[in-house]
Amino acid sequence: MRVAILGASGYTGLELLRIVLRHPRLEPVVVTSEQRAGQPVGEAFPQLRGLAALRFESLDPDKIASRVDAAFSCLHAGTAAKAVAVLRKAGVPVVDLSADFRFRDPAVYAAWYGEHQAPELFGQAVYGIPELHRAELAGASFAAAAGCHATAALLALVPFLRADLAGPGPVIVDSKTGVSGAGRSLEDRYLFAELDGNVQAYKVAAHRHAPEIEQEASRAAGRAIGVTLVPQLLPVIRGIAASVYLQPATPLGADAAHAVLAEAWRDEPFVRVLPPGQAPSLQAVRGSNFCDVSAFVDERHGTLVVLAALDNLVKGASGQMVQCLNRMLGFDEREGLLEAPLAP
Amino acid sequence: MRVAILGASGYTGLELLRIVLRHPRLEPVVVTSEQRAGQPVGEAFPQLRGLAALRFESLDPDKIASRVDAAFSCLHAGTAAKAVAVLRKAGVPVVDLSADFRFRDPAVYAAWYGEHQAPELFGQAVYGIPELHRAELAGASFAAAAGCHATAALLALVPFLRADLAGPGPVIVDSKTGVSGAGRSLEDRYLFAELDGNVQAYKVAAHRHAPEIEQEASRAAGRAIGVTLVPQLLPVIRGIAASVYLQPATPLGADAAHAVLAEAWRDEPFVRVLPPGQAPSLQAVRGSNFCDVSAFVDERHGTLVVLAALDNLVKGASGQMVQCLNRMLGFDEREGLLEAPLAP
Amino acid sequence: MRVAILGASGYTGLELLRIVLRHPRLEPVVVTSEQRAGQPVGEAFPQLRGLAALRFESLDPDKIASRVDAAFSCLHAGTAAKAVAVLRKAGVPVVDLSADFRFRDPAVYAAWYGEHQAPELFGQAVYGIPELHRAELAGASFAAAAGCHATAALLALVPFLRADLAGPGPVIVDSKTGVSGAGRSLEDRYLFAELDGNVQAYKVAAHRHAPEIEQEASRAAGRAIGVTLVPQLLPVIRGIAASVYLQPATPLGADAAHAVLAEAWRDEPFVRVLPPGQAPSLQAVRGSNFCDVSAFVDERHGTLVVLAALDNLVKGASGQMVQCLNRMLGFDEREGLLEAPLAP
Amino acid sequence: MRVAILGASGYTGLELLRIVLRHPRLEPVVVTSEQRAGQPVGEAFPQLRGLAALRFESLDPDKIASRVDAAFSCLHAGTAAKAVAVLRKAGVPVVDLSADFRFRDPAVYAAWYGEHQAPELFGQAVYGIPELHRAELAGASFAAAAGCHATAALLALVPFLRADLAGPGPVIVDSKTGVSGAGRSLEDRYLFAELDGNVQAYKVAAHRHAPEIEQEASRAAGRAIGVTLVPQLLPVIRGIAASVYLQPATPLGADAAHAVLAEAWRDEPFVRVLPPGQAPSLQAVRGSNFCDVSAFVDERHGTLVVLAALDNLVKGASGQMVQCLNRMLGFDEREGLLEAPLAP
Repeated sequence: MRVAILGASGYTGLELLRIVLRHPRLEPVVVTSEQRAGQPVGEAFPQLRGLAALRFESLDPDKIASRVDAAFSCLHAGTAAKAVAVLRKAGVPVVDLSADFRFRDPAVYAAWYGEHQAPELFGQAVYGIPELHRAELAGASFAAAAGCHATAALLALVPFLRADLAGPGPVIVDSKTGVSGAGRSLEDRYLFAELDGNVQAYKVAAHRHAPEIEQEASRAAGRAIGVTLVPQLLPVIRGIAASVYLQPATPLGADAAHAVLAEAWRDEPFVRVLPPGQAPSLQAVRGSNFCDVSAFVDERHGTLVVLAALDNLVKGASGQMVQCLNRMLGFDEREGLLEAPLAP
Repeated sequence: MRVAILGASGYTGLELLRIVLRHPRLEPVVVTSEQRAGQPVGEAFPQLRGLAALRFESLDPDKIASRVDAAFSCLHAGTAAKAVAVLRKAGVPVVDLSADFRFRDPAVYAAWYGEHQAPELFGQAVYGIPELHRAELAGASFAAAAGCHATAALLALVPFLRADLAGPGPVIVDSKTGVSGAGRSLEDRYLFAELDGNVQAYKVAAHRHAPEIEQEASRAAGRAIGVTLVPQLLPVIRGIAASVYLQPATPLGADAAHAVLAEAWRDEPFVRVLPPGQAPSLQAVRGSNFCDVSAFVDERHGTLVVLAALDNLVKGASGQMVQCLNRMLGFDEREGLLEAPLAP
Repeated sequence: MRVAILGASGYTGLELLRIVLRHPRLEPVVVTSEQRAGQPVGEAFPQLRGLAALRFESLDPDKIASRVDAAFSCLHAGTAAKAVAVLRKAGVPVVDLSADFRFRDPAVYAAWYGEHQAPELFGQAVYGIPELHRAELAGASFAAAAGCHATAALLALVPFLRADLAGPGPVIVDSKTGVSGAGRSLEDRYLFAELDGNVQAYKVAAHRHAPEIEQEASRAAGRAIGVTLVPQLLPVIRGIAASVYLQPATPLGADAAHAVLAEAWRDEPFVRVLPPGQAPSLQAVRGSNFCDVSAFVDERHGTLVVLAALDNLVKGASGQMVQCLNRMLGFDEREGLLEAPLAP
Repeated sequence: MRVAILGASGYTGLELLRIVLRHPRLEPVVVTSEQRAGQPVGEAFPQLRGLAALRFESLDPDKIASRVDAAFSCLHAGTAAKAVAVLRKAGVPVVDLSADFRFRDPAVYAAWYGEHQAPELFGQAVYGIPELHRAELAGASFAAAAGCHATAALLALVPFLRADLAGPGPVIVDSKTGVSGAGRSLEDRYLFAELDGNVQAYKVAAHRHAPEIEQEASRAAGRAIGVTLVPQLLPVIRGIAASVYLQPATPLGADAAHAVLAEAWRDEPFVRVLPPGQAPSLQAVRGSNFCDVSAFVDERHGTLVVLAALDNLVKGASGQMVQCLNRMLGFDEREGLLEAPLAP
């Protein structure tokens, strides 16, 4: 299968290329980048020297449509909608990483992102977390891969919501993130001199992944679930380490909490439920498509603490996109993705 | 004033020495270390070369008592109790950093730490956070400096408890910590190769600073306050970044939340309340005795989020010890401590 | 091919497992570890959870010999010699990572490492850098993979020595290394709190990789070459960044220097000669078997500066071992190794 | 003494402010910044909140001259020359950190920096390393503080040159630097995601500090000394770790080498000669004005290896500027500077 990667020179695009290059059934034939158009991939990014005989090209969705069997879009919200619309109209299966097609309610999208650039396609994509929407993804031709904070939070939270174990208050998600989630943005706070040895919360209770988590959490719960999302920027390149706090409706023991997770994710190749008492770590998932989760209960006060760790560029972005496409095309979901993490 | 530092070769002991060396009224005359006994300070620790003409000596509290006007103890729980008891019996003013004298209820101490090694002194020390117990510290001769997680959590939390704004559920403290809080412990997880690029929760809802936070939070609230404390080990040398989550009893706006903090800490030299919307960062307090705090409200769900950042070796340990002693001895609390943070 | 990994719970052993798991022709069937004997691999090391249904076992070379078709040894010098001797006597092809079989002159080995534990095998192995000894490795059944400092230095240096371009003075190798090269050693200087933000030279002009570099450099030059090796410990997990300085016998231009490297490594899959003016970086090789090299000339003073970067756990250890075995067994050398680096 | 800091919002300017705030004889009264003009210092940089009641202002040298007793300039080359010229004409003592006044030969300046913006002042300043030019600095009113790479290299090298111990070949300086040396520059390579876990040489044998080192090395040697300078960017915020390699004219033992350093720097408060065999580290000088040095000899090949470590923002920039001014004004050189390093 020939695939295109739109927006291939950003961190998620390059990560997709890394994965697609080892995928036995996918061949990258188009990689777009406005800044790097014309440059051989290995010249622009020395890590890829000798690995791919490709040149970046400008984005021209009309011309790309006929050259590929499927497309990944790592374009930003807004830009993505327009390009994806062209490809979808031409019948190309698409996995999009922007927020443009993740929502079901246009009012929610408008409130957080503004006017939609392809309203005719709004709501057409499957929300791209295979562990939540595997049936819908099978045979689908359009998926909107979930955000990195959302993936970690939902894989920790959904089993408890499906089991109707949450109390009435909002769920708290303290979501620590590596800086690659911000892309290659040239801002002071992403400089090594500013970030090393540092940690700082940002967009406190005001991050655009919150409504996405709420949408999917509410679907899982069958009722409206509120989420207070507090992202924290870590001096780490890759990773989301989410701590999810909820007060159960009725007391829950640690063993029962573990059982809920273990049962929910028993057959999943990429969600690893850790033994009771063992907390996930970013190192154990680095560079891989795994999401490790575990559950703890504060025996004294009843608080349920569910921890999740994943690599934001893999399971939180590009790996998940490939997993979605594998499912959409009927491949084994693990194709190209079952690699051991890079540890240490 | 001649001072002793017991347990001076650990990270908190060395940090005390760094501070005491620049303190205009304190002179370090005794530094103890079992491992380094006999070695000149500057040979054992090259950063101190040329700064202190002192040798480490073995701990002998009886002999030390007559040589100093005050003592800091950075000994571990248990060992601390015995040494402190000797010094106190001899009338030496002491600031202790162990947990041995932080508690008021012997049963709580016993449940978390086991048998006490100096029960006759139990409950005699003032809990060492000057911002909470300034009046008691004045003229006192015995203080038990607070733990690093506890200091950050309490400086964020207490103003809201004193104002009776907390709802009935437990308070959640997601407390990210630099690795120096663990001292120079030789364990795999503290190795650079294991910790860099990593983050991992530990002692989830089971950390020994939780009961200490509960004791002081409950005193501030005038009722029992439960705390779910989840420490997270960061790839950072210094710092505590605590995120405190509570559901207010009645809705609270962001401005009102800010005003609570601003009012409570208005005259404090070392607690800086940041402007609304600005989150504290570890870099802005690195190497200093400041604790920066700010408050946020999730307008959609009502959650109150209070953030605090401090340097665990300074305001979370050695700086606080000096601040306590300054107060006990009637010095200006800022003596030796009002240094600009090391940023970047 | 069934393979054993002796000493599989250290960093190089685990990295071998990571590589062998994705190798299409190798199957790990024996992994030894004295400390972890009996434990499932995925329990002992959470990054491997779900990837390998193997248990660590104690080292018993006699019993292992009949169960495998080839063996990798990551044991320490001394221990390695004894185990490897058993396996070799039983006819098992072995790639060893210790220094025990890298030398040709017993006196040199004795001077740097002491008494040899299997003198009958001394000098039997091919020195394991395929780029230098490809012909000898073909069909060989015993290789001694080179050290990490040595691999970087030699891939930078050998082309110039073979072209007889070096002057008479010693070659200087300033070799910056990530901490994983020290293994999981519990020493103060490897702690995150000691190493982060730090850099420090060690074993200055006294490191045991120096004689190994000299041996191979001298073979390439056809005369004795002296090497002053100064290793520097970096706050980095993976990588060797070697700066090699030599004064050419006759002046050499930058283009000519580049041409020497380009010509020497033209057909190598894993040595990438960067364009003139572009310095190698650790990030561009992280997690991969590549060694990137480039040459610079100080036009004002004539100094030739050759830079090399590799991942010490891959091209500097485990990847190189697999590359050697691929060659020994007649596989394509790239099997299991041609993966894109993890960047960022 | 009232002082101005020109260019006070960059890293070196802020570091100057940090030092001046604790200096008993200096009071900062003017801080300039074009980007931050009008902002209170503590609002623009939260680490300074509560420490300085100052506002940044636009640079207007004419008006500043009458308001201060001395000035520090952290402006860039070119801009610095013009502002400094105004202040010097008005009789204000100045310590400048740019390269504009470090050189003695206009042709060398022109070759590396282009046209000079204040040629009438060229060559008027004392080169600002007190350890090299103490006599000239006494009573001087104009100093050009040395660059960070230059300070480390020269404090390692000069004692051997003065003792006429260097052979005829060029000196090699492999100079590893923390990223704060680049200031708050928004370039990809300074991003945390690009630099963490990375190391990369830059401006290989083409860095503008090389001619400055050569000028001062040649003065010390009494003959022309060539220097091959290879800077290496480290994943570290602060520090220069220079490795200086030279081939002595005649063989030199390790003890003799140590004695050369020890004798040369015996009375220096800020240059610490480490015991034989102990290598300097960045951690042991972090945040301080110390430069630690030590000498090693490769007994097998004769190479002399001199290592130096300093904090590029302190002894490599702002601390050195204060040390220069202290000397110029007749203060104790240690005033405001004798602080213990921040370790860990």
